[in-house]
Order: sequence, then C-alpha cells, then structure tokens
Amino acid sequence: MFESAELGHKIDKETFRREEPVLREALLDAQLELVEKKSFPVILVITGVSGAGKGETIHLLNEWMDPRHIQAIAMDKPSEEELERPYMWRFWRVLPPQGKTAIFLDSWYMPAILDRVYGRIKNADLDQAMERVCRFEKMLTNEGALILKFWLHLSKEEQKKRFKKLEKDKSTRWRVTETDWDYHERYDDILQVAEHALRQTSSVEAPWTVIEGTDPAYRSLSLGNILLLNLKNRLEAKELPAPAVALPPVMTAIDDLLILKTLDLSRSLEKTAYKEDLEKYQGKLNLLTRDPRFRNISVVIVFEGNDAAGKGGAIRRVTGALDPRHYRVIQISAPTEEERAQPYLWRFWRQLPRRGKIAIFDRSWYGRMLVERVEGFCSESDWMRSYSEINDFEEQLVRHHTVVAKFWLSISKDDQLKRFESRQQVEFKRFKITDEDWRNREKWDAYEQAACDMIDRTSSVIAPWTLVEANDKRFARIKVLKTLCNHIEEALESLK
Amino acid sequence: MFESAELGHKIDKETFRREEPVLREALLDAQLELVEKKSFPVILVITGVSGAGKGETIHLLNEWMDPRHIQAIAMDKPSEEELERPYMWRFWRVLPPQGKTAIFLDSWYMPAILDRVYGRIKNADLDQAMERVCRFEKMLTNEGALILKFWLHLSKEEQKKRFKKLEKDKSTRWRVTETDWDYHERYDDILQVAEHALRQTSSVEAPWTVIEGTDPAYRSLSLGNILLLNLKNRLEAKELPAPAVALPPVMTAIDDLLILKTLDLSRSLEKTAYKEDLEKYQGKLNLLTRDPRFRNISVVIVFEGNDAAGKGGAIRRVTGALDPRHYRVIQISAPTEEERAQPYLWRFWRQLPRRGKIAIFDRSWYGRMLVERVEGFCSESDWMRSYSEINDFEEQLVRHHTVVAKFWLSISKDDQLKRFESRQQVEFKRFKITDEDWRNREKWDAYEQAACDMIDRTSSVIAPWTLVEANDKRFARIKVLKTLCNHIEEALESLK
Repeated sequence: MFESAELGHKIDKETFRREEPVLREALLDAQLELVEKKSFPVILVITGVSGAGKGETIHLLNEWMDPRHIQAIAMDKPSEEELERPYMWRFWRVLPPQGKTAIFLDSWYMPAILDRVYGRIKNADLDQAMERVCRFEKMLTNEGALILKFWLHLSKEEQKKRFKKLEKDKSTRWRVTETDWDYHERYDDILQVAEHALRQTSSVEAPWTVIEGTDPAYRSLSLGNILLLNLKNRLEAKELPAPAVALPPVMTAIDDLLILKTLDLSRSLEKTAYKEDLEKYQGKLNLLTRDPRFRNISVVIVFEGNDAAGKGGAIRRVTGALDPRHYRVIQISAPTEEERAQPYLWRFWRQLPRRGKIAIFDRSWYGRMLVERVEGFCSESDWMRSYSEINDFEEQLVRHHTVVAKFWLSISKDDQLKRFESRQQVEFKRFKITDEDWRNREKWDAYEQAACDMIDRTSSVIAPWTLVEANDKRFARIKVLKTLCNHIEEALESLK
Repeated sequence: MFESAELGHKIDKETFRREEPVLREALLDAQLELVEKKSFPVILVITGVSGAGKGETIHLLNEWMDPRHIQAIAMDKPSEEELERPYMWRFWRVLPPQGKTAIFLDSWYMPAILDRVYGRIKNADLDQAMERVCRFEKMLTNEGALILKFWLHLSKEEQKKRFKKLEKDKSTRWRVTETDWDYHERYDDILQVAEHALRQTSSVEAPWTVIEGTDPAYRSLSLGNILLLNLKNRLEAKELPAPAVALPPVMTAIDDLLILKTLDLSRSLEKTAYKEDLEKYQGKLNLLTRDPRFRNISVVIVFEGNDAAGKGGAIRRVTGALDPRHYRVIQISAPTEEERAQPYLWRFWRQLPRRGKIAIFDRSWYGRMLVERVEGFCSESDWMRSYSEINDFEEQLVRHHTVVAKFWLSISKDDQLKRFESRQQVEFKRFKITDEDWRNREKWDAYEQAACDMIDRTSSVIAPWTLVEANDKRFARIKVLKTLCNHIEEALESLK
C-alpha cells in the first residue's frame, strides 16, 4: 500500500515555480465559490508518519487559501468535559459549517492507531473503532460534506535522514522530539496497523490518498491538485445522488395492526393512588440521582408523542423530583442558522449532558422521522438514513454509560380533540394550540404510521421506547416516573 | 432591608384563584410579543434563603409561560474547562439570546455570598466581586437585556418551621438536606453578607426586589406582576436611551500629534539578520511553550493594523513555532445569527483558550472601536462604552493568568498603495484586496484617529498595545516574535 510512496517522487524547482501560482489561483477561486454558495463543508484529514510534512502542509494550505475560511484542528488530550461525553463529541464540537474547510491533523485516526501500536487496545477494538469511523464519515458525506483523507508517507530510512537533518540545524532542532524517535523505533508496527486501518476506512465517499512526503514540492502540488480536482467536481455537480439507504431489519406484519393501535388507552389511575405513587416515585428518583454511583452515568430522556398528549406535564413531574443543578430541559424547535449549516445531529450533540447530569428533550432527533417525514421537510433518503444514524448515535451514548429513556405519549384521536378544544377555551392555555396543530391533526394516520415505523426501527435493547397510554394523565405520569426509575436503577447496578 | 419581607404577607385563596389566570394570560401575551420581536433577552436572577420557594418559583414560571422560550439555569461546581477560563465564562456560555428568557438560580451572587459567610474570602474580595458583577450587569443592560433580580425571603423562625414541615411528610422529606440545616445555623451571617451585597448591586438598570416567601400565593403573584410590568414597559418603549458613558481617562494633547504618527516606519532588518533572528525567536517561543509552567497560563494574541499591513504573514511566523495542538487562529469576520443575538463580546468569550493554549485573533473585539465606529455600524454610545467593557474583559483575562499581547501593525499610506497594487497584479493574491479595502483607504485619517483613540484608551499596564513599524515585513515579524517571547517569559516568571 505504501510502496509507491517510497519511490523518491520529485518535482524540479522550475516546474514548481511555474505550477504553484496556477494551482494557488485555482484553489482560491474554488474556495471563493464554495464560501459564496455555502453548499457543503470540506473536511480534510492529514495524517501519516512523523517528519513527512503534516504540519508544513497545513501551514501551506493556510497560506495558499483564504485563511478566514479554513480552520486547522489539532487535538490535544481530551478535557474533562470531553471525557464526560462520548468520544466523538470533541470532533462534533468543531465540525466546519457549510462553506468552510476544516483540516484535521491526525484526526480520529492516529489516536486509535497508536493505541493499538502501544498495546492499549486489541485488534478487535481497533476494528470496531474504525467501523464507527466509517459510519461517522458516511453520515457526514450523506449530509453533503466533502471528505478527503491524506496519508503523508516516508520510508523508515528517509524518516531517519529527515530527523537527523532537522537535529543538525540548531534552528530546527526543537522540531524533533523524543516521541518522534520513539515512533521511529516502532515504524514497522505503526505502518502495519495503519495499513490495516486505512484499508478498512477507504471508501468511495471518503477515500484515502497516500502521498510521498520526501520532496516538499511534490507533496504540496500532489495534495493541492487532488483537493482542487475534488472541490471543482463537487462545485459543478448539480445534485448529489440520494444515498443508498439500508434500513434496520424489522418484522413486517401483513395485517394492518400497528403497534400504537394495540395500546389500551383506557388505563387510568385513581386520584389517591396517583398521589401516593407520585410521592413514592419522585422520592425514589430523587434518591437515585443522589446515589454516589450516579456521578458515573448520564441520563438522556426523550419525550415524543401526539400533540397535546401531556409531554409538558409529565416533564414537570420528573423535574419536580430533581435538583435544578442536575438537569436541563431542552425544547426542540426550529434550528438556528449555525445549526442549519451543520449535519442534522449536530444540534443534539451540542446538548449532551456531562456525567452525573440529566438532559430532558421535549421533542428530539426523532423529528426527522416524524414531522419532517410527514410534512416533506426533508427528502425521503434523509429520513430513511436517519434510522441508522440515530441508532448509531444512541449506541454511542449507551456505550458511554448514558441511560437513554425514550417515551412516546399516546392519546386517542377523540381525546386529542377534547384537549384541543379545552385549550382554546382557557386563555392561558391558548398558546399551546396553533393552526399547525389542527393541520397536523388532519394527517393523524400518516403521523401514526410514521410513529409506528420509528418505534419498530429504533426501539433497541439498549435504548428501548416506552409506549405510554396517556388518555389518563395521572396514569401516564406515573408510568413515566416508574420506567425512568427502573432504567436508572439498572444502569447503576450494572456499574458494579 | 428584609424587615418588610417578614410581615407575614398573604393572599387569600379566592383572590389567587381570580388573579392567577389573568396574570398568566398577560405574561404569555408579553412573552409571545418578546419572542416575535426578538428585541431583547430577559435575565431573571432568583435567589434568597433556603426554603423560601426558589425552586417552586422557577417551576411555576415554566408552567405559566411557554417553556420553549425559557431556560432555567442552576449551576453545579465548575467543570475543569470552566475553571480554565475566567470565572464569568460559565455564565457567558449560557446567556439567553434576544427574545429568550433565562432564569438564573442563585446565579453569580450566591457563590460569592457563601464564600464570604464561610470565610473563604474577605470583605474586600466580596466588594471587588460585586463591583465586577455591577459592571457585567451594566454591560448586559447596555446591550439591551432586561435584568430583574429577586431575593426570596423567610425569617429564621419561618425557615425552621418550613424545614420541619417538609421533613414531617415522608413525600417531601428529601427536599431538606444537611446543607439546608447548616445554612439555617448561619442564617444571621448569610443575611448580613447578603444585605451588603444586595445594596452594592441594586441599580436602576438591574434592581433587586425582596419578596416574602412564606405564602406561595403571595410570592407567585408578586413576582409575576413585577415581571409582567417590566416586560410590558420594555416592549412598549420605543428606543432605549443611549447609556451614559464614562471614558477611561487619557492625556489629551492639544497639538495634532497622534501616537501613530510618531512611529519611525523606516525601521528595517537585513535578510541575514532576519533569518538569524527568526530562528532565534521561533526557537525561544517554542521552548517557552514547552516549559512545564506554561500549562498554568493561557495566551491571547490580538492582531490589528492597517489593511495590508502584513497581519497574516506575521501570524504564520508565530504559528510556525508552535505545536498545532496548542494554538488556534480565529479569523474575525461578520458575526453569525447566534452571535448577533448576543452581547457584543459573546463571540470572543466563546473562543477563549484553555490553560496551556494560545488563541490568535486575526482582528478582534477592537473592531467596534475601529471599523464599526468609522463606518457607523454601531451607535456612538456603543463604541464609546466598548472602551470600558473591553478593559473589563481584558482585566478578567489577565487576572486569570492569561497573557494578553496586542499588536498594531502600522504601515504608511504610500506603502499601503504599493501593496494594494501588487496584490491586484498577482492572481493568487487578488482575494486579499477588495473594493472595501479601497473604500477604507479613502477614510485613512478617520481610521488613524480611531486607532489612536483606541491605543490611548486601551493600552494598559496589564494589557499594553505594541505598535509595530511594519513597512518592512522582516522588521515587523521579528518585533512581534520578540515582544511575544518577552510577555510570555514575564508571565512564567511571575508565577513563581
């Protein structure tokens, strides 16, 4: 894989002097068009062996292009806040918006490769990590990102020469560190692991290019030309073809029996029993969140359901049991400009709770499978691929010791009508009912179908949906509290 | 101060039942108008003695108003990332944008009050902290925020009664913690310190209201009515009167001698000497950033100057000496929608570096005193008050062990012309020169005057401006590197 990057590729000075300004100008033009159109973000991954010119390349791109629209991102050790969220959070934090370019030095690759080289993880772990990277990059390209990945290469011999040369000159001596020499020692191991990782993660959408790093002129022109070609290609492309979407497998019923139709909505709770249970489960929830082990987990609660199903009231019964320093309620409505310029899930990643904290989402990332699907706010392939993207997302949460509790509050069509009408009669409830609610009501069946598809495809063992019979508010609230207590209790006990 | 909040204020049930829906409706209407107009953010501070109903009040406001536009903010212990920035960073992170409401529980008051009560800080420290709070709130109100601060009160006797009552009922027992009883013990101390702090921070723009918390009906209606009154007042107000602005004192010269005119722009550096110095100071800078003590400081570098003065080139000579994991270059251009809905300095607060990191601002918060002033993008009072707001901002940085290095790169009018013309001739430099640059050039004198005012008023002992003679690029780059090394060296040595 790396052989042809050890051939001693070279560009003579004259050629470079002739070609560099032409390339620069073309790159600038392409960048300007990208900035103006704001049509997609560009993500460059630059990694490779030490001494092959990774830093210089980033430097050069900053000089060649308009630096106002490029951000170079080199990650240090994760901060405490980063460690308290799923691993990819630190990258989500700094994704470039549409029209901008981010250059990730070493990115999500090098840490995993080095972990393997130094024996901190096993082969299987590396494979899993790379598999997750593939899904992450696929999501990004499906969201429109242009991803180009470069491995800058040097042979072991060349690397040694380069280090020695840098060390000889006292002005560049500081550029060679002990770590660099240590990597040189482990050159063969690094290459072997890298080759495996690169093969596993090279895809049509996010391909790897290996470039020999010995000659700066060759390295720069090669990388610049590939970048230019891809930029122009994408800028000229009319529309991206809709991505092929694989849906998670689901039992399909040949009759018309939808899961939401099987709920017994007549379930209810007496006022006295309700008061007792409310006390009991609010007290229990409070105790659970004060458990010392609670500091090791996070909790994400999702509320979805029919309009007027009582999400707000249920949420207040949950928060009533909590210390206000420990939770945040996140109301999901229209995205902001910054959010619209990012992948769909970005606005939810930015709200993830730290360890020991609870985030309550009043509506959530499931909007894509519900309102956006039914109202046609996104394309069919967008909401279809969101099934697997959301499963990935929740899997990352759960793997990071986050309890994911998802509630669907279900009321009957008749009951909804009663609630709508009563809301219109009480002045201070009028804000809760809009023309949109009435319009949505007309599409009851379509919403029901979408909700059932969503439940079928995203209710997993690790993050199951709880369907809540909500015609009776008291019954619904207690079911929510009780389920939540169970989920948290299980998570605490599984911590050992 | 608290006497009239111990009188046993009460509202009878019937009155409450009559008035509550009216208030709710009016509050909702006002909130809706606020959301639609997006004219200002609302900041409520709710604090007071334990048991006086702070939590319940926040709960109630969430029930009364549309929760999509209210965020309750209760702070836990600061995270590592928060500790690595100036104290107010955690509050800047969560400021509400225009049209939204944030309720800060205890906010920036209670931690300082308790620190004093428990003897962790002295009286003078508390006074200083409250003085800083005053300036912070003043900045917010000048930026248009509506700030209302409530102290919910109980007499010592009432507090005891309330705790006992909660403890008797097993469903509410968990609401009384050991900390609450500890605060009860120190009731008199807390009140004494709080009274002092409240007096010091009650202003026309951000007044305190003390409300007796014994009777929930009285408490809720009182607070709700004050909120309503203030909301309506502000919504009806046409324009806010321009704030009175006090400028930092400056020596005024009666002749026409501007500081920028005193620079000897002919200063230059030979190519050989330049190469030697570049090596020397890049090496030195690199060593300084690898010093173990460097992990205890942050560095903020600001580049301002005439158009085409060579900021980009100077920045690249700095970054060329740095580990890419340790710095970030922040290009300041037009603010995003989220940034426009926040106070002016918000977009810079969000970019502050952690400990051991360097943030390089290519243009900065000084834009307000330069381009925004000259082009009339903001009102006169806006740029005038920015002098003291920016001094406050930088003072917070320096107090937090941040090196603030500010460079003004100065070239002559003739040299600028030469550079503009050469930029237009080289294809790949053309992006660096726009019509706007030519237009700005016509206002050379106005920009020069603005820059001189800025330097006079914001060059402080703790964060001085370095004026860089930049007709000769080599000279300029070395001066920047050398000065930066000195600043960092001083900071490291002062750490002891």
